[in-house]
Amino acid sequence: MGVTGVRKPVQVQRPDKAVTLNIVVDAFVDLPSNMKGSHLSRNVEVIGEIVDESVREPVSSIENLTLLICRSLLERHEYASLSEARTIADYFLERKTPMGKKSLEGYKIFACAKVRRGDGLTAERRIGVEVVGMTACPCAMETIKDSLSVQVENLPIITHNQRNKTTIEMDVPNGFEIEADDLIEMVENAMSSPTYEILKREDEAEVVRRAHDNPKFVEDVVRDILSSILDKYADFPDDVAVRVRSESEESIHKHNAFAERDTTFRELRL
Amino acid sequence: MGVTGVRKPVQVQRPDKAVTLNIVVDAFVDLPSNMKGSHLSRNVEVIGEIVDESVREPVSSIENLTLLICRSLLERHEYASLSEARTIADYFLERKTPMGKKSLEGYKIFACAKVRRGDGLTAERRIGVEVVGMTACPCAMETIKDSLSVQVENLPIITHNQRNKTTIEMDVPNGFEIEADDLIEMVENAMSSPTYEILKREDEAEVVRRAHDNPKFVEDVVRDILSSILDKYADFPDDVAVRVRSESEESIHKHNAFAERDTTFRELRL
Amino acid sequence: MGVTGVRKPVQVQRPDKAVTLNIVVDAFVDLPSNMKGSHLSRNVEVIGEIVDESVREPVSSIENLTLLICRSLLERHEYASLSEARTIADYFLERKTPMGKKSLEGYKIFACAKVRRGDGLTAERRIGVEVVGMTACPCAMETIKDSLSVQVENLPIITHNQRNKTTIEMDVPNGFEIEADDLIEMVENAMSSPTYEILKREDEAEVVRRAHDNPKFVEDVVRDILSSILDKYADFPDDVAVRVRSESEESIHKHNAFAERDTTFRELRL
Amino acid sequence: MGVTGVRKPVQVQRPDKAVTLNIVVDAFVDLPSNMKGSHLSRNVEVIGEIVDESVREPVSSIENLTLLICRSLLERHEYASLSEARTIADYFLERKTPMGKKSLEGYKIFACAKVRRGDGLTAERRIGVEVVGMTACPCAMETIKDSLSVQVENLPIITHNQRNKTTIEMDVPNGFEIEADDLIEMVENAMSSPTYEILKREDEAEVVRRAHDNPKFVEDVVRDILSSILDKYADFPDDVAVRVRSESEESIHKHNAFAERDTTFRELRL
Repeated sequence: MGVTGVRKPVQVQRPDKAVTLNIVVDAFVDLPSNMKGSHLSRNVEVIGEIVDESVREPVSSIENLTLLICRSLLERHEYASLSEARTIADYFLERKTPMGKKSLEGYKIFACAKVRRGDGLTAERRIGVEVVGMTACPCAMETIKDSLSVQVENLPIITHNQRNKTTIEMDVPNGFEIEADDLIEMVENAMSSPTYEILKREDEAEVVRRAHDNPKFVEDVVRDILSSILDKYADFPDDVAVRVRSESEESIHKHNAFAERDTTFRELRL
Repeated sequence: MGVTGVRKPVQVQRPDKAVTLNIVVDAFVDLPSNMKGSHLSRNVEVIGEIVDESVREPVSSIENLTLLICRSLLERHEYASLSEARTIADYFLERKTPMGKKSLEGYKIFACAKVRRGDGLTAERRIGVEVVGMTACPCAMETIKDSLSVQVENLPIITHNQRNKTTIEMDVPNGFEIEADDLIEMVENAMSSPTYEILKREDEAEVVRRAHDNPKFVEDVVRDILSSILDKYADFPDDVAVRVRSESEESIHKHNAFAERDTTFRELRL
Repeated sequence: MGVTGVRKPVQVQRPDKAVTLNIVVDAFVDLPSNMKGSHLSRNVEVIGEIVDESVREPVSSIENLTLLICRSLLERHEYASLSEARTIADYFLERKTPMGKKSLEGYKIFACAKVRRGDGLTAERRIGVEVVGMTACPCAMETIKDSLSVQVENLPIITHNQRNKTTIEMDVPNGFEIEADDLIEMVENAMSSPTYEILKREDEAEVVRRAHDNPKFVEDVVRDILSSILDKYADFPDDVAVRVRSESEESIHKHNAFAERDTTFRELRL
Repeated sequence: MGVTGVRKPVQVQRPDKAVTLNIVVDAFVDLPSNMKGSHLSRNVEVIGEIVDESVREPVSSIENLTLLICRSLLERHEYASLSEARTIADYFLERKTPMGKKSLEGYKIFACAKVRRGDGLTAERRIGVEVVGMTACPCAMETIKDSLSVQVENLPIITHNQRNKTTIEMDVPNGFEIEADDLIEMVENAMSSPTYEILKREDEAEVVRRAHDNPKFVEDVVRDILSSILDKYADFPDDVAVRVRSESEESIHKHNAFAERDTTFRELRL
């Protein structure tokens, strides 16, 4: 029980400088069965105060902001035993195109937290990213290759390629931190190619070449990301949950291709 | 792994006649770890064939359509051990306004099914509805009432009221059926008032009066629906899961008020 | 001044049979300066009655339905001098894939009408379609071709290709009719390739080949559609307005490529 | 012909400090009939450079940013005779609730510009705002008042009230400036009441009271805004175009009420 869609600009500290992120927050508490309604204005107050405070001292991440909101919610709603918050924001990172040109690229990052009264410092935290990139289809490429009368070595074969949207959402175990930038990088490495806002002709050709050298089904993207996650966070406990979803806006169809794996480090380690 | 966003018109049998529903279907199977990719065109073929067949013989419900899709998916993908499908459709029912005028009202209905190879006829089925109606706030009404210098008996007190969107999503246990129309009715009964597309002046006044006679927080809407469900499906087993969500587009705020309960018949019976 | 977002299922007569289309209607009248407000319930009544009537006798097209709504609006709002309505609907047509397999494809069709009191039978009518298909980029293809060390005749060259959404919106002059199916066909012919919901392997390869044989910028798509329109409707008067928009969801970028031409038959004939 | 949906964070100077706005930009040039395609990457480069420059020196407004983009587009596309750009951004202003509590409120602001080669410094500029607030219906209030057996003076009468979204979009004549904050204020003054993210109980009651003291049809909102605009910009020339739209998400219906006036200062002055 709470509020959804509260929009605020918040100051977040990045390695080199503070940036403004426009966040959208949902914030909830549970309600004991003997209470008829909750004081929703407290939820919006909590969000507002933390955002105001960020002007003086930027928050370290939206993940910590979300956790702060949860803790304050429990302080304000003295009757609640559980608080939960979700935050989403547009996010930008500088990338280099194949030819070395700088390009500012857009992503989405999100964070969830859940705090139970009496849990002390512990809390459930979850972090996520959404990345847009490109996939080229291995299946059509193979069918077309088989149909060619001439076989020229190293000549790239045509196929359909398209915009792909991939998300990671995973638990942050207590005592560990996850950097959203790392998750974004893992997704971009798992696609046929990252995409860029600015591409001059030679860059454009190179992105197309790389995508065709690296054709991927949506299920390949998911599999490769899970493998990177397992490598990168080798010391994470077994019960860490992770969900990866990849959706390709198929250029040859009006519908999308979709793969998802909702799993744990335990399963991945089998 | 599968397809999302496949759009088709399908013939569905209602008590009195067959109607056309425009469905949007997502259909998935799992992929054994030794297989690189799945044959997604089979998913779309399965959907297409069942939809084509509905022209000759209308399906009995989108819930059964979704189950049929799941079973066919397992037949076509001989390597898969699990299939899953989700269907959503716009849906219309005739309602009577307070003054007795007929008005055709729009809703959304959805169905999910999950079938495991070897399960025989059993399968997990889930059904849902989304209903738009109206809530009037009890809290502002009380504050205003307390501030009035004159107390006139039976005079309705002003408050903020707004569009509310409420969804039910629940398991259909094996051997039982749930009629979407019943769920829609339970939601409309739990709101401050249902809403209507056509309201002449006297009807309009009456809807406003009823809403003010029946002020509701989003958490009241959720609570009352759960209570109706427990009454209506008294013979359902304990492990049936149900999720009710109610969101009010608060007229006095730019954000929404939201309540959710994700529970089981066991918990509800405590 | 009026209502937006009224949803109804309506019976529309097609050459071979009546079909149900789910329409969304906006309906407006003007308001003389001496009147404070309009009776909006009349707008919804008008829409409801015409839709109810379609159950007994299907309307001939959503364009004529929209015109009927406009005329009824002027009858009901005796103080208004102008009425306007817009209708949009999901629409389906059967297509054949390159290998001859039948596939039901989804589109959007829309209609606008404007009627002035005293205009007699004349009215402004407008019709439109939205079609999803595929474009392959000629520019990246050329850059890559130029960079190849080996030149093999007739070997298709890789490029980026993507989902493209193209719309036509044009006046229907008095005394003439336009068939939405014809507009849809012109759009599909102007893209690098139409897209299909069901494609087995050989079909998939053939769609990819056709798209690469026929690379198109968004501005090519617009130009070719306008040229087809001018041919097809050679007898239309000079003042007929037409707007064509084509948007490609670039697979190599996070933004879209877009071309539009908003013109008249007079300009096109220059 | 150009690009749509380019997302960037940009530094904008406000009276007291520089703020970061996340803009979404569409940028186009025309294409001479003898050219097959345009160099779209130049459009994104132009946007990127102006945004980068804003880090060193914040732009004065998104309206001037949009104009800068248009001028740079004509420099880069030497073959084009016309450039056009549109920018939209989330925007925040501090407001005071009736009880004097500070609340940060969200809006949308947008700007369009069109520059013709050879126009020198002159250009067509357009600015706009989107504001969410509240309307209470005068019609239901009157019907209910007439039906009451007791008439108590000054006692507010119930009615339906709801979230309302209103936009202004208007030309900025050469030699004049328009401040988006002023347009936002005019919209808020024309609604039944502005809305606020944070409202404690007494504030909530006061917003409800003010809305019921000030019932408004969507057409009233449009009319009152146009009247404020004419007062505020009394020295603007006759040919300045302005469009005001107001849409109420009717709490008693599933559809919306809508009013629009697309006019000029000349017409308004009649």
